[in-house]
Amino acid sequence: MPQEQQPALVLLSGGMDSTVLLHHVCKDIGRSPVTALSFNYGQRHLRELECAKWQARAVMADHVLIDISFMGDLLKDGTALVSDGAAVPDLDELSDAERSQPPTYVPNRNMMLLSIAAAHAEASGIQDLYYGAQAQDEYGYWDCTPEFLNKLNETFALNRGKAVSVRAPLMKMEKTDIVRLGVELEVDFSRTWTCYRGQEKACGSCPTCVERLNAFTEAAIKDPLPYL
Amino acid sequence: MPQEQQPALVLLSGGMDSTVLLHHVCKDIGRSPVTALSFNYGQRHLRELECAKWQARAVMADHVLIDISFMGDLLKDGTALVSDGAAVPDLDELSDAERSQPPTYVPNRNMMLLSIAAAHAEASGIQDLYYGAQAQDEYGYWDCTPEFLNKLNETFALNRGKAVSVRAPLMKMEKTDIVRLGVELEVDFSRTWTCYRGQEKACGSCPTCVERLNAFTEAAIKDPLPYL
Repeated sequence: MPQEQQPALVLLSGGMDSTVLLHHVCKDIGRSPVTALSFNYGQRHLRELECAKWQARAVMADHVLIDISFMGDLLKDGTALVSDGAAVPDLDELSDAERSQPPTYVPNRNMMLLSIAAAHAEASGIQDLYYGAQAQDEYGYWDCTPEFLNKLNETFALNRGKAVSVRAPLMKMEKTDIVRLGVELEVDFSRTWTCYRGQEKACGSCPTCVERLNAFTEAAIKDPLPYL
Repeated sequence: MPQEQQPALVLLSGGMDSTVLLHHVCKDIGRSPVTALSFNYGQRHLRELECAKWQARAVMADHVLIDISFMGDLLKDGTALVSDGAAVPDLDELSDAERSQPPTYVPNRNMMLLSIAAAHAEASGIQDLYYGAQAQDEYGYWDCTPEFLNKLNETFALNRGKAVSVRAPLMKMEKTDIVRLGVELEVDFSRTWTCYRGQEKACGSCPTCVERLNAFTEAAIKDPLPYL
């Protein structure tokens, strides 16, 4: 069957990387039908989920929302990303050690999300699962690396039925290139959310806001999102 | 620090394998403090969870229950294990293909449960995570094999912080040996639950009941659980 007829499941947080990924999977790779999968895990920034819903509709993908709010209890005190956790630090407040595994790191988050998504894919007969890992300058999360992806796929390959395959086509791209790709794909970046702080407007100073703003600046493109 | 002082997290379903494992980790390996972790995922047999709670108390372990009832929605139609799923077939109704990936197989269940447990372990500073995979005669779930365990640990080993290590000390044991080990460890098997059908008494004819009864028969020990 032609590539276009192959279904895909895309992890969609509502941030800029996974949003560009969703448009890329639909428009460049030409997958169809596409299901976008988002998680509600008690994050500070529910704005992300509203953006995810909007973007799924924009590419006419199904949108599945899975409530994994148990993560709040599971990880409390372990991370700054869940709403009652520690304060999110500014990027320039981090030590070198923190930059290799920063306070915004959520223990084993990607394996949790990908294994749940893989279960959904397997139960739905979808073989290809896309997630938006990218080459990061400021941060190194161990569970965003090519090594992690390879090991995970080697594990899934042991399945005696149809093994799910996890794909991360943006993995070698810098965030600036992702901004450029998004512009090519006519992604509405005003409908993506990046800020880790749960305020009305993006703060512009938390680690992910800084990364995002740098990416837009390097790409010489204006970020349409309003900042504080 | 001596072995006895090392904490451990044990996945405890309330079935006989994970219950014997819990007693083994506490009494033979001598880990302390031990936390037992159970999941509520909308299974037909909540009796399992009552047994898990009882067994955790019996070894003076903390008991953590995580609600992952999203699994019901995620997997509906995909498995016979979740309460609204298909009927659970008798063992002699299964084809050879079904025996290698039977209807009671839950897509990617073990990776989901282990990755959530690993997140809890990492957030709690516990390095060793035990689960009750064993050498199965009648069934082969791909996510209960030594290959699966090895790949998963290779994945966790990429963590730049303290990597969680998954251990399955019963993996080479037949169910009969697990019954014998349980008797040595004075496990109260009347407080374990195995049946996949959600009835008052264990049915004695579903695949897991048959396996359990065979194991007790081979060990020449009477199963104290009342059957229909």
